[in-house]
Amino acid sequence: MKKLLIIGIGAGDPEYVTMQAVNALNQVDVFFVMDKGPAKGKLVALRKEIIERYVKDRDYRVVDVPSPERKAGEADYVGTVEDLNRDKQQVFERLIAHELHDGECGAFLVWGDPSLYDSTMRIVDAIARSGQHAFDYQVIPGISSVQALAAKHRVALNAIGRPLVITNGRTLCEAFPDGIDSAVVMLDAQNAYRQVSNEALDIYWGAYVGTADEILVAGKLGDVIDEIERVRADARQRHGWIMDTYLLKRRRGGAHE
Amino acid sequence: MKKLLIIGIGAGDPEYVTMQAVNALNQVDVFFVMDKGPAKGKLVALRKEIIERYVKDRDYRVVDVPSPERKAGEADYVGTVEDLNRDKQQVFERLIAHELHDGECGAFLVWGDPSLYDSTMRIVDAIARSGQHAFDYQVIPGISSVQALAAKHRVALNAIGRPLVITNGRTLCEAFPDGIDSAVVMLDAQNAYRQVSNEALDIYWGAYVGTADEILVAGKLGDVIDEIERVRADARQRHGWIMDTYLLKRRRGGAHE
Ligand SMILES: C[S@@+](CC[C@H](N)C(=O)[O-])C[C@H]1O[C@@H](n2cnc3c(N)ncnc32)[C@H](O)[C@@H]1O
Ligand SMILES: C[S@@+](CC[C@H](N)C(=O)[O-])C[C@H]1O[C@@H](n2cnc3c(N)ncnc32)[C@H](O)[C@@H]1O
Repeated sequence: MKKLLIIGIGAGDPEYVTMQAVNALNQVDVFFVMDKGPAKGKLVALRKEIIERYVKDRDYRVVDVPSPERKAGEADYVGTVEDLNRDKQQVFERLIAHELHDGECGAFLVWGDPSLYDSTMRIVDAIARSGQHAFDYQVIPGISSVQALAAKHRVALNAIGRPLVITNGRTLCEAFPDGIDSAVVMLDAQNAYRQVSNEALDIYWGAYVGTADEILVAGKLGDVIDEIERVRADARQRHGWIMDTYLLKRRRGGAHE
Repeated sequence: MKKLLIIGIGAGDPEYVTMQAVNALNQVDVFFVMDKGPAKGKLVALRKEIIERYVKDRDYRVVDVPSPERKAGEADYVGTVEDLNRDKQQVFERLIAHELHDGECGAFLVWGDPSLYDSTMRIVDAIARSGQHAFDYQVIPGISSVQALAAKHRVALNAIGRPLVITNGRTLCEAFPDGIDSAVVMLDAQNAYRQVSNEALDIYWGAYVGTADEILVAGKLGDVIDEIERVRADARQRHGWIMDTYLLKRRRGGAHE
């Protein structure tokens, strides 16, 4: 039998790794490392740092996996991601068949938490269901960027007894969700917060949270919106890429204060 | 100067503790342990197990804090929680003034992640803003029950490119949120999933996730709803209390299949 682990490694700080993940890392024979895009170098380096820091007295192999690229700029976002996942599934199937021997344990190290805006579980599940490959797999949760952001800003995500939405830039552009007073926005390539700037919101924004490059800005959306847009553009230019997330909270007491 | 740490310890399994939390635990002089209700014994024991397992060669004190009780059955849930938090704030202020000496580090160990349905940050923030007590504080994220649930069921929380709502039983009773296909429900004392049983949903339910008593049930809501209600009532009776969470996902392809 082969074994696969999908290990959440947290969203930036190597100290976000859990004891469960450390113990899991120490069972792994083959690490599959797959990243893409302009941040590839940094993200691959962080994964390798985690492996080196936490794996003790054990032989392992690291397989760098060329990641299929998502077709950019397609109108059908979901369809494009589904196509990409089918390509990834073929890559994963080859890895399971050829790079992982019987009795061995392979691992994917997933940024943040594997349950949030990540397709690794979906892809591995599809392979398991296909019945073409015999393997067992297990998922290990990790600290997501959402939690890292909240901890750094020392702010609760939800209001007392109220729901929280975790959404993406594309969806926020449609509207600030009805009946919702707290929303976390990820994967925002287009300054979607501009679309809701007429609402009485506080924003807690963070880029590269948990890393040495971390930037945090918080305040009334109207007051800090220009600063965030400037800092964001600037950081993206300096690093060649950006990963940022923000929490929007309705201010208590009246629509416009 | 005094220092306070709000440390997320994960939602059940002592291995959910992060390396950052382990390092933080090893700076603490005084642990404030506060729990209430029928689960108190179990939850206090787990906190003490975490302290004993991870703190190495260091003297510390443990202060058991009597927790103010929430008035049960009040119609105004938010108001009741706000009253409770004011009571807790007074307790916390006494702790900071009398149990924590200058130069010392105190800690609250928060179940799961401190940013999700927990008031510790709100209370400490209110004390800091009051200016009555000089102290520094820091928040350390933890694995929430939401992530533990998703990992155990090996299921992604959100659909590709789609939002996720994290809500509570009371709010779900009003309606399955419009335009939403994934919802996590916490703090459900009243089988709120009954209210949405006419929708084409899959449910991923878990109780005591990450502990030795863990129970998981998943399936089409209509198929497993009676089983979950039975298992839930049974577990609550056996243990005297229950903590459970579930993910509801709209099934793809048609409202009622
Ligand atoms: C494909 S999603 C993966 C999310 C990841 N699974 C998690 O749990 O955080 C990538 C998005 O996560 C957010 N993100 C990830 N790491 C981040 C960090 N360290 N700081 C700020 N945002 C981050 C950004 O919004 C980015 O666009
Ligand atoms: C006051 S909230 C605290 C949530 C916590 N801060 C977290 O991050 O999970 C308590 C609710 O969390 C959920 N919960 C906490 N621990 C759980 C566990 N181990 N298994 C299932 N549900 C849990 C239940 O819905 C419970 O009613």
